[in-house]
Amino acid sequence: MCGATPGASADCAGRGYVHGYQGREAARLDDQASALLDLLHDGIKYPAGSSVLEVGCGVGSQTITLARHSPDARFTAIDIARDSLAAAKHRADLAGLANVEFRHADLYSLAGNTATFDHVFVCFVLEHLDDPVGALQLIGGLLKPGGSITVIEGDHGSAFFAPDSFAARAAIDCLAELQRRAGGDAMIGRSLYPLLTAAGYASVSVRPLFVYADQSRPDLVDAFTIRTFTAMIEGVRESALAAGLLNADEFDAGIADLYRTAEADGVFCYTFFRAVATARADETGAAT
Amino acid sequence: MCGATPGASADCAGRGYVHGYQGREAARLDDQASALLDLLHDGIKYPAGSSVLEVGCGVGSQTITLARHSPDARFTAIDIARDSLAAAKHRADLAGLANVEFRHADLYSLAGNTATFDHVFVCFVLEHLDDPVGALQLIGGLLKPGGSITVIEGDHGSAFFAPDSFAARAAIDCLAELQRRAGGDAMIGRSLYPLLTAAGYASVSVRPLFVYADQSRPDLVDAFTIRTFTAMIEGVRESALAAGLLNADEFDAGIADLYRTAEADGVFCYTFFRAVATARADETGAAT
Repeated sequence: MCGATPGASADCAGRGYVHGYQGREAARLDDQASALLDLLHDGIKYPAGSSVLEVGCGVGSQTITLARHSPDARFTAIDIARDSLAAAKHRADLAGLANVEFRHADLYSLAGNTATFDHVFVCFVLEHLDDPVGALQLIGGLLKPGGSITVIEGDHGSAFFAPDSFAARAAIDCLAELQRRAGGDAMIGRSLYPLLTAAGYASVSVRPLFVYADQSRPDLVDAFTIRTFTAMIEGVRESALAAGLLNADEFDAGIADLYRTAEADGVFCYTFFRAVATARADETGAAT
Repeated sequence: MCGATPGASADCAGRGYVHGYQGREAARLDDQASALLDLLHDGIKYPAGSSVLEVGCGVGSQTITLARHSPDARFTAIDIARDSLAAAKHRADLAGLANVEFRHADLYSLAGNTATFDHVFVCFVLEHLDDPVGALQLIGGLLKPGGSITVIEGDHGSAFFAPDSFAARAAIDCLAELQRRAGGDAMIGRSLYPLLTAAGYASVSVRPLFVYADQSRPDLVDAFTIRTFTAMIEGVRESALAAGLLNADEFDAGIADLYRTAEADGVFCYTFFRAVATARADETGAAT
């Protein structure tokens, strides 16, 4: 659920990451987080004393909520982008959170580390990776036997709306295509069960988190339909035009139709997926 | 969520209905109901002594559950198809239900009747009508002031799955196109809020009912992915081919890919929408 902003992150392109840590993107992620935190984090509370790794914390959009909801757990939040990490740390300081340690690290550099975490939290990260099963296996090696992983991803193929619009779907497809070209998968949400199963986790359980926004929920229309989803699609305008996926009129018509779904007779639907699974005792360890 | 079976119902084609009350279709609707009743009917309980109209009861797939869940309410179930009604009555008798009266009636023939019902229940009916707002207004005239309407509809545009498949989406589109040609709308679920609002109802509240089927829920995969959804799409094969929407190889490839989503690494997602709204005291009455 991150805007695909190819080129924003040249230092990690080799990993297939397409992160957005520019200022405007960070603001969008904040909007997204404030509208969705209740939905995404509902019921997530880690036990006192447990150690939790957040992979790809970005600017801390999820980290702050994670740490607040589980004040007696110890969090280690990693990201490959130093400026994102600095922003995340600043926010954690402002929030007075003392239970988060931020570390500059690439997930792949952790391969071979011992299994020291009780839980891992991964949100909006797998969508950017060209080998999500490999990443999940690597994470399994960082988990103590029986430890849990929580994965949250969006799925842009789950978006539908009224009035329906071919142009809007074409604009959404631009983001999915750009993300695909960068090695990611904007439709990964639906696949969490097979991915975690293929990576050797046990007790995989997936919960769809449905966002439904109509005018009985004007705050959600504003926060999600306009400021999260439509803003995210708008964010790839230049990249989509540069790639020749649509011309400017076509793209702008799609964006106009997305805004149209926020009007009095409009409806917007989107599904996030949250999976929880357990590291198998016989399959954890970085060597697997 | 009814298979579009054009021609099956010549006597009501003028109304834009596309009902499926052939034997095989009735069996499919039974499978559908048994898998989905818990989801669709969760929390629906009408007060003792209240009078409830079910519009378009068909073979009674919803009627039996409605009447069981509210044993002290009185139900009137109408349908325009005499053989469906007979089947529904037979099922109600077998279930020992004494609180349902079945009546042969076309919704439109009720226009001008006095407002005698406390509640109306309408499931998988609006999708077949060329003027759903008009139908909802007519129903409003049958409701006592302040009475409630419950509407349930599917939305075939909400279906997505893993592995994704262009062929499967093309086969689904056949059903949607056939339903459109018959005057209906297979994507009506997302529009319940604007439709009920346009029809003058108050306090419109829509709840998405998400069906998520992966191999952690094999019974649901069998009952929904295979026996409800895929069977429904398969049911329009001859009509789709006759209409030239796809050729046989294309259609069959789509069906094969839908079955593929029921395998070990497959996932299938679909959303029903349930709306509840209140008849406005100043807008009810058949004359409006």
